[in-house]
Amino acid sequence: MKALVYHGPGKKTWEEKPRPKIQEDTDAIVKVVKTTICGTDLHIMKGDVSTVKEGRTLGHEGIGIIDEAGKAVKNFKKGDRVLISCITSCGTCEFCKKGMYSHCEHGGWVLGNTIDGTQAELVRIPFADTSLYHAPKEVNEDALVMLSDIFPTGFECGVLNGQVKPGDTVAIIGSGPIGLAALLTAQFYSPAEIIMVDADDERLKVARKLGATQTVRSRDGKVVEKVMELTGGRGVDVAIEAVGVPATFEICESIVGPGGHIANIGVFGEPVDLHMERLWSQNVTITTRLVDTVTTPMLLKSVEAGSLHPEQLITHHFKLNDIIKAYETFSHAKEEKALKVVLENR
Amino acid sequence: MKALVYHGPGKKTWEEKPRPKIQEDTDAIVKVVKTTICGTDLHIMKGDVSTVKEGRTLGHEGIGIIDEAGKAVKNFKKGDRVLISCITSCGTCEFCKKGMYSHCEHGGWVLGNTIDGTQAELVRIPFADTSLYHAPKEVNEDALVMLSDIFPTGFECGVLNGQVKPGDTVAIIGSGPIGLAALLTAQFYSPAEIIMVDADDERLKVARKLGATQTVRSRDGKVVEKVMELTGGRGVDVAIEAVGVPATFEICESIVGPGGHIANIGVFGEPVDLHMERLWSQNVTITTRLVDTVTTPMLLKSVEAGSLHPEQLITHHFKLNDIIKAYETFSHAKEEKALKVVLENR
Amino acid sequence: MKALVYHGPGKKTWEEKPRPKIQEDTDAIVKVVKTTICGTDLHIMKGDVSTVKEGRTLGHEGIGIIDEAGKAVKNFKKGDRVLISCITSCGTCEFCKKGMYSHCEHGGWVLGNTIDGTQAELVRIPFADTSLYHAPKEVNEDALVMLSDIFPTGFECGVLNGQVKPGDTVAIIGSGPIGLAALLTAQFYSPAEIIMVDADDERLKVARKLGATQTVRSRDGKVVEKVMELTGGRGVDVAIEAVGVPATFEICESIVGPGGHIANIGVFGEPVDLHMERLWSQNVTITTRLVDTVTTPMLLKSVEAGSLHPEQLITHHFKLNDIIKAYETFSHAKEEKALKVVLENR
Amino acid sequence: MKALVYHGPGKKTWEEKPRPKIQEDTDAIVKVVKTTICGTDLHIMKGDVSTVKEGRTLGHEGIGIIDEAGKAVKNFKKGDRVLISCITSCGTCEFCKKGMYSHCEHGGWVLGNTIDGTQAELVRIPFADTSLYHAPKEVNEDALVMLSDIFPTGFECGVLNGQVKPGDTVAIIGSGPIGLAALLTAQFYSPAEIIMVDADDERLKVARKLGATQTVRSRDGKVVEKVMELTGGRGVDVAIEAVGVPATFEICESIVGPGGHIANIGVFGEPVDLHMERLWSQNVTITTRLVDTVTTPMLLKSVEAGSLHPEQLITHHFKLNDIIKAYETFSHAKEEKALKVVLENR
Repeated sequence: MKALVYHGPGKKTWEEKPRPKIQEDTDAIVKVVKTTICGTDLHIMKGDVSTVKEGRTLGHEGIGIIDEAGKAVKNFKKGDRVLISCITSCGTCEFCKKGMYSHCEHGGWVLGNTIDGTQAELVRIPFADTSLYHAPKEVNEDALVMLSDIFPTGFECGVLNGQVKPGDTVAIIGSGPIGLAALLTAQFYSPAEIIMVDADDERLKVARKLGATQTVRSRDGKVVEKVMELTGGRGVDVAIEAVGVPATFEICESIVGPGGHIANIGVFGEPVDLHMERLWSQNVTITTRLVDTVTTPMLLKSVEAGSLHPEQLITHHFKLNDIIKAYETFSHAKEEKALKVVLENR
Repeated sequence: MKALVYHGPGKKTWEEKPRPKIQEDTDAIVKVVKTTICGTDLHIMKGDVSTVKEGRTLGHEGIGIIDEAGKAVKNFKKGDRVLISCITSCGTCEFCKKGMYSHCEHGGWVLGNTIDGTQAELVRIPFADTSLYHAPKEVNEDALVMLSDIFPTGFECGVLNGQVKPGDTVAIIGSGPIGLAALLTAQFYSPAEIIMVDADDERLKVARKLGATQTVRSRDGKVVEKVMELTGGRGVDVAIEAVGVPATFEICESIVGPGGHIANIGVFGEPVDLHMERLWSQNVTITTRLVDTVTTPMLLKSVEAGSLHPEQLITHHFKLNDIIKAYETFSHAKEEKALKVVLENR
Repeated sequence: MKALVYHGPGKKTWEEKPRPKIQEDTDAIVKVVKTTICGTDLHIMKGDVSTVKEGRTLGHEGIGIIDEAGKAVKNFKKGDRVLISCITSCGTCEFCKKGMYSHCEHGGWVLGNTIDGTQAELVRIPFADTSLYHAPKEVNEDALVMLSDIFPTGFECGVLNGQVKPGDTVAIIGSGPIGLAALLTAQFYSPAEIIMVDADDERLKVARKLGATQTVRSRDGKVVEKVMELTGGRGVDVAIEAVGVPATFEICESIVGPGGHIANIGVFGEPVDLHMERLWSQNVTITTRLVDTVTTPMLLKSVEAGSLHPEQLITHHFKLNDIIKAYETFSHAKEEKALKVVLENR
Repeated sequence: MKALVYHGPGKKTWEEKPRPKIQEDTDAIVKVVKTTICGTDLHIMKGDVSTVKEGRTLGHEGIGIIDEAGKAVKNFKKGDRVLISCITSCGTCEFCKKGMYSHCEHGGWVLGNTIDGTQAELVRIPFADTSLYHAPKEVNEDALVMLSDIFPTGFECGVLNGQVKPGDTVAIIGSGPIGLAALLTAQFYSPAEIIMVDADDERLKVARKLGATQTVRSRDGKVVEKVMELTGGRGVDVAIEAVGVPATFEICESIVGPGGHIANIGVFGEPVDLHMERLWSQNVTITTRLVDTVTTPMLLKSVEAGSLHPEQLITHHFKLNDIIKAYETFSHAKEEKALKVVLENR
């Protein structure tokens, strides 16, 4: 079978690989129907993610059809249409029992990281019973692919951790796919205002279409002043960090009002200055989280019910064979006006 | 009447001042029976707290007897024995309605800061109905004085914000009065382990007597290793910062386990490094808070019921007239083995 | 001034009364601009509410203009446009401090009950600072009148107590004004399905227009079967009781699924059978509540932000002078297709 | 092997049975070391539990040693010392993922009910990975047996559902083993008062020794008056029902204060009158629950840490061979002053 293989920083090929096999009775082999590329995959390609070794098949998102199910798998059988979670959960360790699948002692983020991933014709999914979800028939396949990672991530790390409530004023720093997923899912809780911040006018335009009540262009270094003005000097109830660099985190620190929340989604490569000399008395809460994907069943129900349309973030479609071209497009997101690209194995 | 007056950095006198008068119908004048000195008062004396101007009577803790109640005061009358909250709450602003009295638009921390305080024979208390509490008769007066500030502070900022639960492993960095108040109130929730950290062996001895299950001496720079060893490498569920300097905050960042809480109590004068390059994926929560004193009624009930003994933190008693001497003792806490000093107006 | 006065069961007149006066410094006199009639007023007229004595001016909802403010009132002054809360809160008692204004030791539901109410040209509001809200300028007056009682009631007793969550299946038994207020505010939390139940097809038609995803007509005694069928036999996550009779409460008991919530809004005159022989093992939560109106500020923000349109429930307008006619219409709600009637003092 | 077998109402024998075998790869066979008898077993013996068929081995509590582990079992191996949970959890169904193991689609309460139980020399445990717990070495075996059922039951259904908080006044109706387990675990949250109610003076004496601050003898029909007097007319914050008959449930309805909680533990055989004509406005919460055993890991930690001593409830020890005699003793609990009896397989 064919797979997208990482061969060290900057090097990847679409190449023939042996088809994956059941290794444990709790595994399933899934024929990939659709997959996508994540910002994290670009980080891997730069060599930033040290756990990913040469020879690894990338990808941790996707939907597919069960090709083979291990003997201990109870919930799935050959032919079942499934959503693959980016987080693998054993379901029995201390962390899984607490719903913190991200820190599963035998799983967590392993796909396309420490084991071969979904950017391939077939993929082995460990602990299938707790790491796959039945795909509802009537749901758009494109919508489903978005539920592998970015929607649970935007929702759990941004919206749930930020404790967005009806009537709140929310600011989301970063209007990339993950920030937009937070924008769409924040609306589950009917905040009064959602202010989106980004450097790219194009993305802010999308944000307005998807429900932002205000947008702030971040180019001129006046984000803090503008947000404070929009909030009558009170600051926001929830600041969601969806970029992952010190400058945007510090914006969050400056715009959060007393009693407010900073919910981090961004992946950071360096420390940030935490202004405790000011924040110590401000009754704020700061949260971090690697997505647990515990909300996947709820997101599936919302998509089924028509109250969430994740496919709105998809800008490009490619054949899985053309994945190298898809990477090219996704790497030049600004020029290509790309948000999420979907790859189809047909 | 006599009062302890701040005359600029390093200068204070015990001097005659005009007796306070009712300024608003919601005020009460309270004859101080007992008061105490807070670490914050020492900061003020160093000139660190810019809101405190020369001529200010210091002090924000105490119990007393109502000497005069304004016409709009409904819950208190002359002769009532009262506990004075360090936080003044109007009861009607947006923040007070949310239980965030610390940010009351017409109050907050004003006593001994922006208006004259409790280190005096008499004190004016604004918004008496919502800023005073009836002192239960059968309760030890010394215990009550501890409920003005340090017990609600240790409990709300440390224990409640840290979400201490039965079975948890808690570390408290700093065994001064506030850390010890957190230690005593953490036991409301029956954690399995409470590890106290301090540089002073004497204070760690007190900590063990007051319920610490483990103590770690912080002198040799190996606090993190020791705590990790005590937790079998897993880190703590809750790290309570009760010092207020970057080094101790960073200890908290290093010892908190996945899914854990860092609850800050310390007053900071400078930023700290937040190691987001590691913490972004650790599902941690960091909280800050200026005490709201919303738990004062509950703490009063617990003292009445005999499940909390705040007077255990009192090491010295002085007459109010000897307050200059009391400041001297409290400033040399280590040498004097002083925790809290109580001043009696008799 | 003129007022609608209760003279015992079945008797009411629109008559001249002395204008109300400030009795306590914390009172305000409000010139009523708009008011409405509540189902509770009809109960009073039947003689069902024993606390209401002859001679009482009815009404506990409305908006108006401050005509006079007592000396201790800080947040309002003559000329301010205000929303009157149906619940009077002293802001200082144990219950008010817990946000349980409904059980305020000096207030609670008193307007049009134990003191004169809002169906008059002027009304005295005790504890004005904590019982009135500034009316935002740009907000439709009709929308505001709905925030005095039915929207906080539907939201707090039904939606908040029912813990409605994204993805949930909610059933609301009763599509009168209060059930419809629950329907509109349940949508703050984006449930997947909202099933409305009523005997009146007309009201179910309104329900569908206002967001119900399914409706069930209750005439034929098959509500339980139909709801169970709609939920694939699983039962609902939240059953909201908005009628107040044993039969509808028992429907809630029968349709709630394991782990679900029954949130009562209805005013009951008799006990109901609680089927503990079945429910003991079903992990259900049953809640009751007299509205606290703690969510009024949030509802005001949502109306301002355009995410809630309470005026959708208003079917009729009358001049305040015509209040007897308005009562007539409201008493024949079915025939008149009446939901809420608004009375204007102009 | 030998087992205690139910042969229809009133009939049980200690008899030879074939040793259990692994049926699914996720099963484990456990050699029983200690077990106990539950009040539910007495109900079964009366014929009250229709799911239990003739020929069934009874018992759903115990500790043991793994004798054989199915191929898919990951967390346990032959020789491991384990605690058996009374609730079997598949770990993968919708309910298990929500932590509602009691309603597991493939498990729940099955042991000694729909499959053979623990009152035997050997027992088959389905879904071993999620239904067994490693027994900490240093913990008293008697303490562990109490964690199979009554401690999680008293804690989850009574204390957690009742939301016991520091400073609360709690009443527990029923001082049998389950009420006493609630009494001991309520103390995790440091309530100010715990009032125990029972008809048996002996049990109330035990209750006082185990931490009750007040006891009320229920014989003379004045429980409500006495509890109201003890609470100064305010009623309790939490009423825990630990009997399971209408009369005691109605006591809970009468003593719960505004804003309070009724937490049901009792197993009911008939409906109760719910006095909605009074409770509708009292902001109360009523909960039911079949124990989920989600708190077993926390209870294990507390026992290890020495903050919980479940063995305090054990009054009698028997050899497993003498189980018929043990049943006799447990059936005459009052006369024998029996609380929990432990059976040892040695």
